Parts: sequence; C-alpha cells; structure tokens
Amino acid sequence: MEKNPRNNLIMSGERLDDLQNGYYVIQNPDKFCFGMDAVLLSGFARIRKNEKVLDMGTGTGIIPILLRAKTEGKHFTGLEIQEECADMARRSVAFNGLEPEIDIVCGDIKEAAEIFGAASFHVVTSNPPYMIGKHGLTNPHMAKAIARHEILCTLEDVVGQAAKVLTDRGRFYMVHRPFRLAEIFQVLTKYRLEPKRMQLVYPFIDREPNMILIEACKGRNPRIQVDPPVIVYKKPGEYTEQILKIYDMI
Amino acid sequence: MEKNPRNNLIMSGERLDDLQNGYYVIQNPDKFCFGMDAVLLSGFARIRKNEKVLDMGTGTGIIPILLRAKTEGKHFTGLEIQEECADMARRSVAFNGLEPEIDIVCGDIKEAAEIFGAASFHVVTSNPPYMIGKHGLTNPHMAKAIARHEILCTLEDVVGQAAKVLTDRGRFYMVHRPFRLAEIFQVLTKYRLEPKRMQLVYPFIDREPNMILIEACKGRNPRIQVDPPVIVYKKPGEYTEQILKIYDMI
Repeated sequence: MEKNPRNNLIMSGERLDDLQNGYYVIQNPDKFCFGMDAVLLSGFARIRKNEKVLDMGTGTGIIPILLRAKTEGKHFTGLEIQEECADMARRSVAFNGLEPEIDIVCGDIKEAAEIFGAASFHVVTSNPPYMIGKHGLTNPHMAKAIARHEILCTLEDVVGQAAKVLTDRGRFYMVHRPFRLAEIFQVLTKYRLEPKRMQLVYPFIDREPNMILIEACKGRNPRIQVDPPVIVYKKPGEYTEQILKIYDMI
Repeated sequence: MEKNPRNNLIMSGERLDDLQNGYYVIQNPDKFCFGMDAVLLSGFARIRKNEKVLDMGTGTGIIPILLRAKTEGKHFTGLEIQEECADMARRSVAFNGLEPEIDIVCGDIKEAAEIFGAASFHVVTSNPPYMIGKHGLTNPHMAKAIARHEILCTLEDVVGQAAKVLTDRGRFYMVHRPFRLAEIFQVLTKYRLEPKRMQLVYPFIDREPNMILIEACKGRNPRIQVDPPVIVYKKPGEYTEQILKIYDMI
C-alpha cells in the first residue's frame, strides 16, 4: 500500500475496500462488514437534491457513503450504537474526505428522536437486524450478533423512531427479510409510514426471494407499487446484468 | 358440435371451453369469462384430502371445477351473487357431471356466514373484484363491472366473511392486485387471517408484477414464505415453461 497519511486511518485487523466509485470503505472482516443488502438498498433509495438523510444502524457507514456518491442529497448522518464500529465508519468518512457531508454519530436507534429532534430528516434509511430475538443462531461474536439479531433494537424501535425523525411526507427506506413482510407492513402502518414501493430480491429466477426492499412515506394513502424483481445470479457465481448495473450505478 | 344432450346446457351467446383436463366450462364472452388469475389461484391453492372448500364470487365456477380436477378435496361450493352467472356456472357443473362434488349457490358474499354457518369450510378461495369503488373505469356492462369493481362487496367484506366461515387453522387463498398489498395484509391481520405464503406474478422478467397470490391461515403466527416469482411471458405472445406447466398441471 502506498505511503499515504490517510492509511494511518486503517487499524489492525481492518482492510480497505475500493467501492469503484471513487470512494473507499474500511471493514473489519471479523466484526463489521457490509453485504449486498446495503448496496441494493442504496440503489433502491431515492434521495432528492438538498435532502437530509439519516441511516439508522449504519455499521461501516457504507449506506451514507454510497448515497453521498450517487445522489445530490445535502447531508447524511449515520447512527451506530457500537462505538468501535462508529469509530471505524468515522475513519472511512475521513479517508474519503467526506466530513462536511457525512456525520457518524454513536448512539442508540431507540433514542434517535431525542438525539436529532422530531421531523429533522427528509429520508431515513435502515438495514436493521433481521432476526427476531431467539430465532436463528445468535452469533457468538457479539459485534456481528448485534448487527444481525434484534438484541439492542427491534423492528418496531426502528420504524417508530424513523416515523418521529421524518418530516411530513418524509420517506423511509429499509431492506429486510421477506419472511417478516406481513409484520413489517403492520408496524409501518401502525406508525403511519405507508408502504408505497417494494421490490423483491430473488437469488435465482426459480428460487424464493431472500431480501425485500421497501419505501414507506409518512402520512400518505395506501397504494403500493411493486417494482420488477431483482434477480441476483444467472447461475451460481455469475451475477445478472441487472446486479452488475446496480453495482456500476453506485 | 356433436348431438349430445349435454349441449342443451349451453345457451345463446355462450361458448364451451375445453379445460384440457377432462373438464369443460361454459363462458359468456360478453359477460362472464375467467382469466389467468383464476387459473394461477387454482395452481397456488393447496387443498388436502377430504377438505371442504368455498369459492367466494365464483363467476363461471372455474375455480371449483379446476380444484375438483386437481385435488382430493371432498366438496366444493361456489358462491355467486349474479343469478345469471350462477345459473351458467351450475350448467357447467352439470355438463361435467360434477353435481355430487360441486354446489353453486346464488347469494351475497356479505352474507356467507349466514348462508353457510360459522366454521363450515377448511378452505376459502377468492378472485374478488380488484378495483376500489371509483378507481379505474367502471365497466359499462354491469355484469363485468360487478366482477371487477368493488360495487357489491369490498375486500374487507370478502376477508371478514372468509374468516367467519373458516375452521380454526383454515386457509384462505386469494388473487389480487399488488398495488393493494399493504391494505390486503392489514385487513387479513385485522380478521386474524395471518399471511403465510405469497407469490408475485410478473408478466415479464423486467416488468412490475400485475398479480399477487396470497395464502393466509386463521389463527397462526406471523411469518410469511414468499415463493419464487411467476414469470408469465418469455416474450410477447410466448408463455414461459412455468406457465405452461401450471396450465398442464391443472
């Protein structure tokens, strides 16, 4: 690696990944890594010029960095409860020289409205923990477990706080697992975030979907648009053109 | 057409369609015809041996006839509010000699629980009107309009009555339009019919879905399985193998 003072930002056990869009992200393969989920959510989310965006449970900070790269949003905030992870995300932001546009805040999603105030964002994004408390195996590594299981916050915490910090007509974008779809809709409508658009991600054309992308709008009428499917693989190990295009676009 | 006394069952303006499974259905192209919706719903629904099934808003009677052909259900009832249509469906049943297994009842979905009694079916199927009252063009032909628009019954009427006539753990199968998905889930859970399985039908692989198939179970826990997508056309006018297989299976 070239001798660049920026490289001091990378700690032991971490690696630097090139996002191929002029930006980089620091990851720790043992603790905090982003997945295709975050990339697809960033491709699905629509951020308009000058909007303020909050990413709840930002992990590596990948979503604010990708959204900053592909949209004309004004400012992005990443909220992350794990201090070590927030610190790593902050160093990624610094590595990219994005401090003016991206803040990483270490704090609890359950206190988002207290931290930021009501109606303070036009858009909230989230790639929250998917697994219900005891369902699935709890990850023996606590850092990963917190990102994947509803240990520190539930779906309802995320949605409830998103509803508070969003402006009227503000938009909430979330990626989640299809098996929780009915519950997701129920919780969204409970907090008056009306599901307006969704997209299912199928690993193969003849397989069950493993991700769902959802856009909900605060205070809108019920009518949802379902987008064309995302098909990830043509055959094992070979991405579809569609996925390559999403990665390219970012 | 051969001289067969059964042919007296076909009235002026009607035609006889061969379902290619040993059964026939009478249709009236100006008034009552079934669509791919009904065929896909029949393919999606799972009827176990000896179960009793009610089809709400049966139209031509296509769903009971297809389900009778492909499953080991014990008895099928088709409920249809339009007398002329119920009469045609009844003649289709007679044409096929299915009177012992299929009843066509002329009556109002809103009174299903009164007509049949609570907890009287293991399965309810429905291909209800899709369009909300004033949305979309109201069909100038009243018979078609009633089948397509929520003129005589709403989504909530269908779901509410299905919940009543179903046994505990009974299953409800419905085909509908994706734009109403959030509302469908909300109404289902309101009546304790938990969405357990769904499948989106995309006309083409790169297009928005135009149908949704849903299975809900009375009194179950929330967790939904999303099935692989149904893709209808390979290219305009040419069905996919998947669709040909569904038609074949029936």
